[in-house]
Amino acid sequence: MADAKYIQGKAGLEAQAVPATLPCKTLKLMANPMDGMPQAEHFKIEESTVSTELEDGHLLVQVLCMSADPYLRGQIKSAPIDAPMTLFLAGKVLKSSSPDWVVGDLFGANGPASTVQVIKLKGGMPPWKLTEHVTEEHISYGIGVLGMPGSTAYGGLIDVLKPAEKPAAPEVVFVSAASGAVGQLVGQLAKKVYGCKVIGSAGGEEKGKLLIEKFGFDHSIDYKTVQTKEEMVSKLKEVAPDGIDMYFENVGGIHFDAAFACLRKFGRVACCGVISNYNKEAGDVSALNSVNLGQTIYQCQRIEGFVCTPWLSGQRGKFLEDMSRWVKDGTLTMEETFFDGIENWVPAFQSLFTGSNKGKVVVRM
Amino acid sequence: MADAKYIQGKAGLEAQAVPATLPCKTLKLMANPMDGMPQAEHFKIEESTVSTELEDGHLLVQVLCMSADPYLRGQIKSAPIDAPMTLFLAGKVLKSSSPDWVVGDLFGANGPASTVQVIKLKGGMPPWKLTEHVTEEHISYGIGVLGMPGSTAYGGLIDVLKPAEKPAAPEVVFVSAASGAVGQLVGQLAKKVYGCKVIGSAGGEEKGKLLIEKFGFDHSIDYKTVQTKEEMVSKLKEVAPDGIDMYFENVGGIHFDAAFACLRKFGRVACCGVISNYNKEAGDVSALNSVNLGQTIYQCQRIEGFVCTPWLSGQRGKFLEDMSRWVKDGTLTMEETFFDGIENWVPAFQSLFTGSNKGKVVVRM
Repeated sequence: MADAKYIQGKAGLEAQAVPATLPCKTLKLMANPMDGMPQAEHFKIEESTVSTELEDGHLLVQVLCMSADPYLRGQIKSAPIDAPMTLFLAGKVLKSSSPDWVVGDLFGANGPASTVQVIKLKGGMPPWKLTEHVTEEHISYGIGVLGMPGSTAYGGLIDVLKPAEKPAAPEVVFVSAASGAVGQLVGQLAKKVYGCKVIGSAGGEEKGKLLIEKFGFDHSIDYKTVQTKEEMVSKLKEVAPDGIDMYFENVGGIHFDAAFACLRKFGRVACCGVISNYNKEAGDVSALNSVNLGQTIYQCQRIEGFVCTPWLSGQRGKFLEDMSRWVKDGTLTMEETFFDGIENWVPAFQSLFTGSNKGKVVVRM
Repeated sequence: MADAKYIQGKAGLEAQAVPATLPCKTLKLMANPMDGMPQAEHFKIEESTVSTELEDGHLLVQVLCMSADPYLRGQIKSAPIDAPMTLFLAGKVLKSSSPDWVVGDLFGANGPASTVQVIKLKGGMPPWKLTEHVTEEHISYGIGVLGMPGSTAYGGLIDVLKPAEKPAAPEVVFVSAASGAVGQLVGQLAKKVYGCKVIGSAGGEEKGKLLIEKFGFDHSIDYKTVQTKEEMVSKLKEVAPDGIDMYFENVGGIHFDAAFACLRKFGRVACCGVISNYNKEAGDVSALNSVNLGQTIYQCQRIEGFVCTPWLSGQRGKFLEDMSRWVKDGTLTMEETFFDGIENWVPAFQSLFTGSNKGKVVVRM
């Protein structure tokens, strides 16, 4: 049993007495659909009780929101059946047996999709503390701008695409899925922090308006009006006649093909998602893209895949410090689409693929 | 007319009286064959005389060797007709009107394919001085290890592929066209300077032996015994069962496909040539390669095209200093294939595509 001294509230909060067990709901994966849209029947919600006893170096937490992110489509194809989904979540500490955390601390983490859980602090990626960066009202930022999507946008733009420091003319960035959780942040950072010219692709007029009016993009392209690579190239050339310097890839398919065709000398592609491929079976050749290697040589171009881990874990850059400052000073504006209750995780996840979401999809508990 | 004080020999050399004109031969392009192997009828040798009068800031030089490099296939498709080929060359200074150069200085340069010529020192890429790095006997190094191929190998390995500094186990590098001008140097640097495990692909048993016995590669693959990507993957897996960390791309086609299929987490591809595509027409889809972007994401992989200019010009790294030291201390061993006379430039160039050359192809004047 943990030393009582750590079981205390942060300044201004009284530590609550925690009962010996707490009720919990868990989202479990019940099948591995290999293609097409995952459905309710592939999941179940299981009720249980969680013991609130803590060994040293653990946190008992209440999850306040769970994330639905496109990359989870891969997990659904291959993860064990009748086991909890693993996803990003944010919440608050109910009980701590670590000197580094107190009751009431807010956190973000990657873990099982359970509403109440015990987090072991050592081993694996530890939770990151949000207490100083966000209030409980905006705890959803812990799975958004101050979580995986935020660190993806931050690392991908700053350290993978690497906007030029003092370009002769503003560099041109093209962002796909630009009204999504990651894309909205990439575009705003590129525009407001680096002074780039920013073009975003999103589906439908409403999202296009959001890009321009809320996020400050220079141009939007409605990908739903485009069927082929050539049509997408022509849309890009309308707003960037001399081509693009950077492409932030969230989609794949003709988005990549057109961006690559428009990529200028010293152009860079940062690739963190290919949502158009996620509902395809492994080995589906339509999930492959063509690259002209000769073009990459003489144009000195780079295509780089990455995941957010180095930035989210703090190994690289100052993600939390920088992004929370940009949230507080109004540099960044966030759009979120809320779903209520773990029971609505499946429709929340589906919305990513139908495009009915705007910004970050948040499942509130 | 330049100040006489600069028209002087280097220590130990007498400045020779230079006649008012010197005879010159120039290789000119006479057609733009778009596909297939360029032939003698597409070129001509023109004789002329060159005035040896110099304005300030110029060098009169005698070219001692000219380069035949695969990338010139692109120039042959698109350069002006009845004009000199532009290529890499090395030679010595006959007369100087610059305080920075003296008679007898050795140099490398990119310029017209003329045996005697006047080089303007300002504007464009200036010649690089080889006097301290090489004797006239080895002036061919100025178009090899101390020229474009050397700087391609140097920049591509060190700054594009970036071998890990202290890997837990030696990183594995795969080099295509490994017995060629660039490949032989990449493999030796990777092995001898960075301690990598090095696999090279070359055509035929003799070249395979050269890789192992002369250059110290760990393994060789005879690409002439391989017809498909799958066969190349299987050859790679025989010698690198856990895959490769880096691929130095000189060839394209199934070499790239197999290397990409074997690329491990954090794998890098440096692309400086795709010789298998150079005799194809523009728009030939067989010159495209398929890339699975999803793989690049979760494996954090990078594909980067580059040209040697930043390193050759000294803007990046210490190419001449480092490479000449590695030549002098025996770290690097060079294979060269010589052709004699500008009249033999075409067969020299053809040898690159038939694979009858070993190492750097040098046309001696």
